[in-house]
Amino acid sequence: MAGTDRSKKSIEGGPSIILVEPQLGENIGTAARAMLNFGLTDLRLVRPRDKWPSRRAAEASSGADRVVEGARVFATTREAITDLHVVYATTTRQRNMRKAIVTAEKAALDLRLEMAHGRACGVLFGAERMGLENDDISIADVLIEIPSNPAFSSLNLAQAVLIVGYEWLQAGAAPVPETFSMGKTQPAAKGDLLGFFEHIESELIAAGFLFPPHKAPVMMRNLRTAFTRARLTDQEVRTLRGVIKTLTRLGKIRSKD
Amino acid sequence: MAGTDRSKKSIEGGPSIILVEPQLGENIGTAARAMLNFGLTDLRLVRPRDKWPSRRAAEASSGADRVVEGARVFATTREAITDLHVVYATTTRQRNMRKAIVTAEKAALDLRLEMAHGRACGVLFGAERMGLENDDISIADVLIEIPSNPAFSSLNLAQAVLIVGYEWLQAGAAPVPETFSMGKTQPAAKGDLLGFFEHIESELIAAGFLFPPHKAPVMMRNLRTAFTRARLTDQEVRTLRGVIKTLTRLGKIRSKD
Repeated sequence: MAGTDRSKKSIEGGPSIILVEPQLGENIGTAARAMLNFGLTDLRLVRPRDKWPSRRAAEASSGADRVVEGARVFATTREAITDLHVVYATTTRQRNMRKAIVTAEKAALDLRLEMAHGRACGVLFGAERMGLENDDISIADVLIEIPSNPAFSSLNLAQAVLIVGYEWLQAGAAPVPETFSMGKTQPAAKGDLLGFFEHIESELIAAGFLFPPHKAPVMMRNLRTAFTRARLTDQEVRTLRGVIKTLTRLGKIRSKD
Repeated sequence: MAGTDRSKKSIEGGPSIILVEPQLGENIGTAARAMLNFGLTDLRLVRPRDKWPSRRAAEASSGADRVVEGARVFATTREAITDLHVVYATTTRQRNMRKAIVTAEKAALDLRLEMAHGRACGVLFGAERMGLENDDISIADVLIEIPSNPAFSSLNLAQAVLIVGYEWLQAGAAPVPETFSMGKTQPAAKGDLLGFFEHIESELIAAGFLFPPHKAPVMMRNLRTAFTRARLTDQEVRTLRGVIKTLTRLGKIRSKD
């Protein structure tokens, strides 16, 4: 139905769409097409399985070339989200994590608000069949659950992107409230938050806290989940890093006694 | 992401999805898959281009076999909607017809209301590239327009079905208001309405009203559009048929004088 019309003004911007370990170039292309339909243009890929750039992706995008051509590839989710302030993640399964879960509709309204306040936003999507790993989920601020038939839930990657994009465009019609619960404070950029996680993690390993070693990943994930939920500001992250530094120095001083 | 889970109760029902002249079996399959994701199960096909049943449709449905297997094929749109009381139609282009146009979200809420009042509902979708013909549009009660990027509107058939289905499921969460603007009256079944159109059309041709002949289709379409917008009840259709019969009899009596 229809297609590219260069005479009309394109809608631009919106949250970044981050595909983590997408398998087929074709699916990246159909996701790009779904994005541009609703004015989303910033595509980020974390470890795409197939070679990139991908001819199949370009073909499957049905004219959304600029989204495909502008896509950036990252080695880790961390690098892909480092400049973002707010990250939502799509999920189809209930996770055993204390995280807010919202509908795609609510997510779109939230993201409009965040971006209206100058915050860079993104939405994480997992691989075609697997969805996101718990490690990626743990660093998301909020989870998006797309309602579906309990007995038949079979949304593919591009379809999930489609619904998030569709709600994003729909939400544009709603007015942005003037007040927002976070007030004037800004959440920390994800790069700073993740740097803080690495800092605390390395110190906890050094201190023997993350023990036994095979439980360390789960323990860190739980910590990251808790800190992420706090929606720390830049200043708070700096403060916390200072706290850790102080505590470890204190430990060293004491151990010398 | 996920798939069929026979241990969970499936959502059933919803409006009929009517695909008019779909071209590829594969697209019928992906549309069926999109349907079942959101609990829609009644699929109707008008003149599918490829052979039916279609192996490609079954494969592309990713497990939504029962929707594909249960699909019924019709020779005309008329036959496909004859038992329905309310028909919405998707469109991507502005049509030069005086018809209500709503968003998919509003359409879903409307259809929930209609069905809560016992009215059989359906949504028409046109062929992959072409969309619906004006003749099919003219017999729809309301048009659904899916908002998209003005410069890049490229929803495929399954994606349009997906969004209608998604909104249908979302709308289920909203409470059904107790009152409804039509009160207790029921709109006529489409078969009766279309029978009325044929009646008036044949009489108008006989009367030389639809002249010159090449303009007859447009004139009838405009009439159908106007009558459809009126949302005639069963009783009103019977009354109108009586009116036409009376008028033509009057004409015959007069011409004998």
